[in-house]
Order: sequence, then C-alpha cells, then structure tokens
Amino acid sequence: MDPEALNPVIDKAVESGIPVVMFDADAPNSKAYAFLGTNNYYAGVTAADKMAELLNEAGGEVGVVTHPNQLNHKERTEGFRETIEKEYPKMTVVDVKDGRGDQMISKEVSEELMREYPNIKGIFASEANGGVGVGKAVIDQQKKGGDIHIISFDTDKGTLDMINDGIISATMAQGTWKMGYWSLQFLFHLQHDIAGELEGETNLPRYVDTGITVVTKDNVNEYYPGE
Amino acid sequence: MDPEALNPVIDKAVESGIPVVMFDADAPNSKAYAFLGTNNYYAGVTAADKMAELLNEAGGEVGVVTHPNQLNHKERTEGFRETIEKEYPKMTVVDVKDGRGDQMISKEVSEELMREYPNIKGIFASEANGGVGVGKAVIDQQKKGGDIHIISFDTDKGTLDMINDGIISATMAQGTWKMGYWSLQFLFHLQHDIAGELEGETNLPRYVDTGITVVTKDNVNEYYPGE
Repeated sequence: MDPEALNPVIDKAVESGIPVVMFDADAPNSKAYAFLGTNNYYAGVTAADKMAELLNEAGGEVGVVTHPNQLNHKERTEGFRETIEKEYPKMTVVDVKDGRGDQMISKEVSEELMREYPNIKGIFASEANGGVGVGKAVIDQQKKGGDIHIISFDTDKGTLDMINDGIISATMAQGTWKMGYWSLQFLFHLQHDIAGELEGETNLPRYVDTGITVVTKDNVNEYYPGE
Repeated sequence: MDPEALNPVIDKAVESGIPVVMFDADAPNSKAYAFLGTNNYYAGVTAADKMAELLNEAGGEVGVVTHPNQLNHKERTEGFRETIEKEYPKMTVVDVKDGRGDQMISKEVSEELMREYPNIKGIFASEANGGVGVGKAVIDQQKKGGDIHIISFDTDKGTLDMINDGIISATMAQGTWKMGYWSLQFLFHLQHDIAGELEGETNLPRYVDTGITVVTKDNVNEYYPGE
C-alpha cells in the first residue's frame, strides 16, 4: 500500500465537507479524520509472546518469513524481533527470510531456513500466504520427525484448516469487525456535528488500535465464515 | 503510576459485571475492557518534529529534562531521542537530565545543561513542572543574550503563561476531552450489551491513542480554562 497515493482524493472529499476516516491502511499525511486498524508493531509483540509460550521454558532458535519491503510487515517483524531480544533471552531470531507474500516461495525459504538451522524450533509468518507455505514445508519436515511451531497472520481458510490439523499453532486475527463498527461511529459523529468542527480539529481520536486476537485450536472454529 | 496496583480491584469489578475502562493511565494486565490515552512514545516523536521545525535547517544540540524512572516519561524521551537520531541528522540529543518532576530541580539541571553545552539550542521538558523550571533557567540565560527553544508538556497555567510570554515555544496538549467522551461511549456500549459479551472478548478496541495537539502562541488562548 502506498500511504501517499490517495491523499489528493481524500483531501478533496474532506475539503468538500465529506467526512473521511481510514480503516485497515492509513494515509497519515492526508486530511482524513481518523485511522482505525492494527498496530502492526504490537501484533509482532503479541506473536513473540505467543511463540515464547509455545516453546515454554526451553526457548531456542526461531525464524521469520515475511515481506521485508512492505511497511506493515516490517513493523510486525520488528515487534517480533525486538520483543524476543528484550524479553526472552533463551530465544534467538536466527534469520528473516523474504517469502514475497507467495506460498511457493515461502515454502522454499522455510526449507532453506530448516536446512541452515537444523535446530530451529519456530517460524513466524507475517502474512497468510506465507504462513500456508511455511506450513507445507513443515509437513514435509514432520514426516522426518521434526517439530516446529508456526505462528501465522490473518484468518484465511487455508490458515484455519492448518490450525485445525495442528500444523500451524496460532494465527493473529485482526479486529476487522471493530474497524468497521467504530469507523461508522466516527462518521456518524462527523456527519451529525457531534465530534466538533468538520474543518480543523475534531474530538475523534486520530489513531485507534483495533488489536489482535490469538487464534489457536481452542477457538479456531469461531473464525470460519458463517459461524 | 504503578500499572499493577489496581488490578485486583478492577478485576473484582469486571467479574461482578461492572464495566471498567481505563483512561489516561492503563492497567494492561487487568481485566479492564479498553484504555484511552496518550501514546507517550508518539508524543515524544511529535515533540521532536516540532523541535526540528523550531530550529529550521540549522539543527544543533538539544537536551531533555525528564523523570527518567517513570514509564510514561521514559517513553516520551525515547520517542524524542529516537526520532532525532533517525530523522534529523543535523540535531544531536546531548544529554537527558533528571528534573524529578520538580520545578526547582528542573531549573538547576537546566542551568547545568547550559553550562556543560554552551551551544545548546533547545530543551524538551517531558512534564509541566519541569517545563516551568526550564523556562525560569532560560529567562536568566536570555538576560545574558542566549536563545533556547523550550518544548514542554501539558497545559497548566504556568506553562500557558510562559508560551504567551515567548519563553516556552510549544507544549504538547493531551486529548483529555477525547479520553472522557470515548470512555463514556465505551461504557455505554458495555452497559447496553452492544459491544458483545461482558465476559470474554468485546468489540471495543483495547487501545485508543487520543493523540497530541501542539500548542504555540498562535492557539494558546484556547487552552486557558473557561475559554
């Protein structure tokens, strides 16, 4: 996502008196009144805490498969890495691989990771396609007796199925319902002039972190659509 | 603030079915449903951006007077320091002094700072008592022909008066109105069962950054009580 590309359109709408709030992806230099979405750094912190819990006291080597050129994935990786460095001295982040948001490439770089670090105990995949790719690599590995914990991101069907099958240990569910609901509340406030001025400062918080829920085998069934 | 001290009381209330949200200061390990307040790290980032603007292209040496043992002040200082390191290569944070949240001590450590770094161009005070102390030190300095930009925190009368007098260049106003208003909205949602379950997960965002407004001579009069 290019955080600047929509600025002219957003600003034109706001200048015409049309309330605009952003959700999921921000345009911080636009005139939008608020942003509601996941704080990606803290999502990475949560993933690190969960990984530490999965590896118990033992700790060990862990890796990351991510999209290193995209800001949101960079932030997730930083939150994961910095938390492990600061909070969990028994764990080490040995490598960060570029899975390019692609299932096949993520599978390949995971196999590389497992070859280069035969004692690796966990992999954090910062997005869903990557997570399924890592899962496929680990299925092959398990046939050889390996045991690697995977933490993934989002709640695509492929990810949920792998949680049900015990391949992926946990995934980070974003607060998409909250994004929609509170965006609408904010627009309602703007439209009915109960959030202060339409021009200039309003009484809306500029930044709302809609948070992360950790999905595991225990609660995975609540995340399938229609349930 | 001890972020753990109130946990038993908060948890007891929540377990009895009483909705609890936190504002201004969080208790992250309690059962409170949400927190609404200032992201102190980003407040420090904003202070750094404002300091860079005040020093224009010239840059130079800047210092901090803070309360180094309190988490919120530590975060403000980190946001200030890291932003200057990353974004403003012409500026250097030469020292961080402990003003202990006291006006006299903050005045003394500011005098020390100006003695040790005679070319110092700016001081960020992370809280209001400290800011007024720094201001008093700079008044004495100005009599000797010095010119130092001060950025302070909060909108106490002493701070606002010093902005009107041109001693303090800017102060960071917290979104206190937003904290109160949106806390009430969240409690309303919990009480009327429109935010999901009272027990377990709700549809409230756990963390709301109510943001910072930069107050300068241009808008200071809006911040006096009763206006």
